[in-house]
Amino acid sequence: MTKDKLPLILVTNDDGITAPGISALIKVASKYGRVVVVAPDSPQSGQGHAITLNNPLRLRKVTIFDGIEAHECSGTPVDCVKLAKNVLYKNEEIALCVSGINHGSNASINIIYSGTMSAAMEASLEGIDSIGFSLCDFKNEADFAGSMHYASIIIEKVLNNGLPNCKLLNVNIPKLPLEEIKGLKICKQADGIWVERFQEGTDPAGQKYYWLTGEFQNYDEREDSDIASLAAGYVSIVPSGHDLTKYEAITPLTDIFSK
Amino acid sequence: MTKDKLPLILVTNDDGITAPGISALIKVASKYGRVVVVAPDSPQSGQGHAITLNNPLRLRKVTIFDGIEAHECSGTPVDCVKLAKNVLYKNEEIALCVSGINHGSNASINIIYSGTMSAAMEASLEGIDSIGFSLCDFKNEADFAGSMHYASIIIEKVLNNGLPNCKLLNVNIPKLPLEEIKGLKICKQADGIWVERFQEGTDPAGQKYYWLTGEFQNYDEREDSDIASLAAGYVSIVPSGHDLTKYEAITPLTDIFSK
Repeated sequence: MTKDKLPLILVTNDDGITAPGISALIKVASKYGRVVVVAPDSPQSGQGHAITLNNPLRLRKVTIFDGIEAHECSGTPVDCVKLAKNVLYKNEEIALCVSGINHGSNASINIIYSGTMSAAMEASLEGIDSIGFSLCDFKNEADFAGSMHYASIIIEKVLNNGLPNCKLLNVNIPKLPLEEIKGLKICKQADGIWVERFQEGTDPAGQKYYWLTGEFQNYDEREDSDIASLAAGYVSIVPSGHDLTKYEAITPLTDIFSK
Repeated sequence: MTKDKLPLILVTNDDGITAPGISALIKVASKYGRVVVVAPDSPQSGQGHAITLNNPLRLRKVTIFDGIEAHECSGTPVDCVKLAKNVLYKNEEIALCVSGINHGSNASINIIYSGTMSAAMEASLEGIDSIGFSLCDFKNEADFAGSMHYASIIIEKVLNNGLPNCKLLNVNIPKLPLEEIKGLKICKQADGIWVERFQEGTDPAGQKYYWLTGEFQNYDEREDSDIASLAAGYVSIVPSGHDLTKYEAITPLTDIFSK
């Protein structure tokens, strides 16, 4: 790449523009291109692929990242990507979108619930190579050293080689010190689910409430699943798409419905 | 089925519990089992697979459907299904979850953005056979006659035969009078996207806003895609799952990252 034509890298997340994880990702991405940031003005965890249809969206320029053009947005992570692609940078070519670094795992079924991964998927739908990064540690003060090291390797590989047969990577980093991470592995999305337990309580007005909590359960025994690779100390990379068709059901269903 | 042990059918949607589409679906489902309703207390279109993590959820019993046990919920469509499965009906076996009838198409990539389909997917993750129904007509006063006719056929088939090799159907009904619908087809999710255009304006306080709008574009030329089948006058049924892995990218990515 030449200095006068650095690739444009869009950075977003779902934990909100002030989360430590996005600062870490901006630092890494800045080594490889001109970074611009469009991220939610408040935490949006669990927003999935939500978009804002019934309300207007706001964009505000922020100066919290030294020398980096950044906007906060009143909408969801997916809204941020749509505004970046179709309003703010509509006349430029976005070479790469990176989302995160999320505070918490987005391995396995979490990809479905995750605002971080939905933002990255939205960019991939718009034709932009895209990577979501998540650290398997929910804490605000999580150690991002391992995440930053591997994010750097992955971003450089993708900028240099492109993404073969996909537009989207779901990258998860184990909660380990950098020196204990064993490397990275290309994996499959583990088949697991969240088993819910609601915390029930009574609010100050005497009304009953339910608060979502739960526990992840992995039902996947494949050694090359993302959950297995993380458990073994590796960074997991799952090439991901957006086609939910269960092709193996088409013939038997056709039989049932033709009777 | 015996009269004293009717299958329990959970009905939900994303347009909110007062939408005409859910009344139509309750009417159909009531022919086949004991219907219970848990649906959002306000419209939730475009909520995707959003869940409520940072706020408590409320449930209120409502009596708007004659003889039907129904609750409205302060959360998203996915929250509704989680509360139904894990709180309200945790000691009963839910035989089927039906979501909709949505006012508007959820064919192709819309499955990703749709609260209707995300509610149905959530039920399928919980192990419940599940069907999302959507009519390709956004209007509140849409004609649900064709939708009701085909929803009845599909619900009966699924209750009698189960779902082979899948747990989730994405059903879309063309905007046609019943007698002009040609039948139903098992299809594949069309590869299309929304091309966005934001309406820009200035609010009463002089602040700029952006309002999401856009146009669906189908890039899929397969004759057996859901978009093609709807255009030809058929009800489309896409068996759907939740594995987003792009298997065809695993080998080439492994090559790139092993260098």
